[in-house]
Amino acid sequence: MRFHEELTSLQNPKVKQVVRWRDRPDRDDSQVVLAEGYRALVRALAGNYPLKEIFVCPECFPPEKHHEEELLVQWASRGARLIRVSPPAFAKMCYRDRPEGLLGVGPQLHRGLDQLPHAPNPFYLVAEQIEKPGNLGTIMRSSDAVGVDGLILCDSRTDLFNPNVVRASTGNLFTLPVAEATTRDTIPWLKQQGIRILATSPHVDTLYTQVDLTTPVALAVGAEQYGLTQEWLRQADLVVRLPMMGEADSLNVSTATSILLYEVLRQRLQAGLVKDPGKVPDSADC
Amino acid sequence: MRFHEELTSLQNPKVKQVVRWRDRPDRDDSQVVLAEGYRALVRALAGNYPLKEIFVCPECFPPEKHHEEELLVQWASRGARLIRVSPPAFAKMCYRDRPEGLLGVGPQLHRGLDQLPHAPNPFYLVAEQIEKPGNLGTIMRSSDAVGVDGLILCDSRTDLFNPNVVRASTGNLFTLPVAEATTRDTIPWLKQQGIRILATSPHVDTLYTQVDLTTPVALAVGAEQYGLTQEWLRQADLVVRLPMMGEADSLNVSTATSILLYEVLRQRLQAGLVKDPGKVPDSADC
Repeated sequence: MRFHEELTSLQNPKVKQVVRWRDRPDRDDSQVVLAEGYRALVRALAGNYPLKEIFVCPECFPPEKHHEEELLVQWASRGARLIRVSPPAFAKMCYRDRPEGLLGVGPQLHRGLDQLPHAPNPFYLVAEQIEKPGNLGTIMRSSDAVGVDGLILCDSRTDLFNPNVVRASTGNLFTLPVAEATTRDTIPWLKQQGIRILATSPHVDTLYTQVDLTTPVALAVGAEQYGLTQEWLRQADLVVRLPMMGEADSLNVSTATSILLYEVLRQRLQAGLVKDPGKVPDSADC
Repeated sequence: MRFHEELTSLQNPKVKQVVRWRDRPDRDDSQVVLAEGYRALVRALAGNYPLKEIFVCPECFPPEKHHEEELLVQWASRGARLIRVSPPAFAKMCYRDRPEGLLGVGPQLHRGLDQLPHAPNPFYLVAEQIEKPGNLGTIMRSSDAVGVDGLILCDSRTDLFNPNVVRASTGNLFTLPVAEATTRDTIPWLKQQGIRILATSPHVDTLYTQVDLTTPVALAVGAEQYGLTQEWLRQADLVVRLPMMGEADSLNVSTATSILLYEVLRQRLQAGLVKDPGKVPDSADC
């Protein structure tokens, strides 16, 4: 493998810069996002995410065989700079415990509603005021899994480029069409396009399985503790709930969202509107 | 409120004991579990979990009004000792950041397969070798939500009584019938009772929505990284997968489990085998 540069000193300004990027103000000042680990770099490649630099520490590659060399060749062919880093310097740069010897840096891509891809029968997820990076990342992972046409983050309370979002999303932050917008802008934008708003609340009669989810729909879910704001509940075309059979009266927001997303997919698969890509090959490695 | 005892000193042996119980060896030596926060104590009451002592720091009650006094009166009537604790001592005892002024201590209840409640049309969840406390707790929360008849932890790699299990389960550890067993014992136990084993794997053709889940069933899910062991995959009556429409080829295990659990519930509600208890009242406080 050919590297463009080599870093060994812990005092190297680049090493120090990456360490500073763990903190949001520094990350935002530089408008960068960090992509740690093999899976994040695979996803970023699949999503055509424009990572600019990849720090590589071959001594830190995990024993289970991934395809690091092929991956890096592909990144190099897209113009990413490959920088070899010594194990001590790499350990210092990484946010995660087992960073797998790979750390990418790219620009923060901020998109608005009008930059979401057009879809013939849209299926959007709206996530309002989510607070925990782990929940936001898990929501992204599930959104990718059901093939949403876009994720709209309304009045976000989480830094989209937080390393824990990247991690919990298993790199799907780099593949998923994500728009950042306000509730005030998003509701009329959806209505203008004839996309039904399906809001969620534990305090309504209709179950999520009792409604038709095969037409253009935006599923809206709200913050961890208080759920959706009144704005969404008032303007929704439908409000549904999940049945709760036990002692608890709510689920974790990322769990509830995933169940709802898979109900949309179930109905759309059954109606023949989308095609199941089939089983995952045994050899898949991420 | 009448307290049986009052603790103010940080050096009090009870304060120090509770601090030590944060670590598994000390917890296991004493065979205790800690129930932190209002919600955990509400659930433990609902689940008739035999908490013995409750440490109370009224100064730490959150500003939003719960019903702490009523709750503690009920616990006292069940014979729990109520111990008033000063804010500094309470802060020292707690594992969580915002422990809401309530901390219960009870025995670890270990149950085997034959202690699971009998059910006319059983719906069990088997979770094999789950490693992360947060995942196990989330699986418990969802298991409660769909009303499983029992959760069977096979060859567990997590301490069931880890504070993060308690927290992520939102206290449903105290309401849910949980059995700890080996895979070797569990498979014949299920088969003997004519309970179909539904295993999960990304490498099969059948989708989880294409099978009848209304008859006696044990849904089996496996560890975070590698899924179920071959033992379960070989002995299962059916193996199903979730459709994956995007770049990722798997979901978080607790997310995937929750989606599967809600499909069982969907089918059973539709078949009229269980009854939806209806919406959550607006006044519900946990």
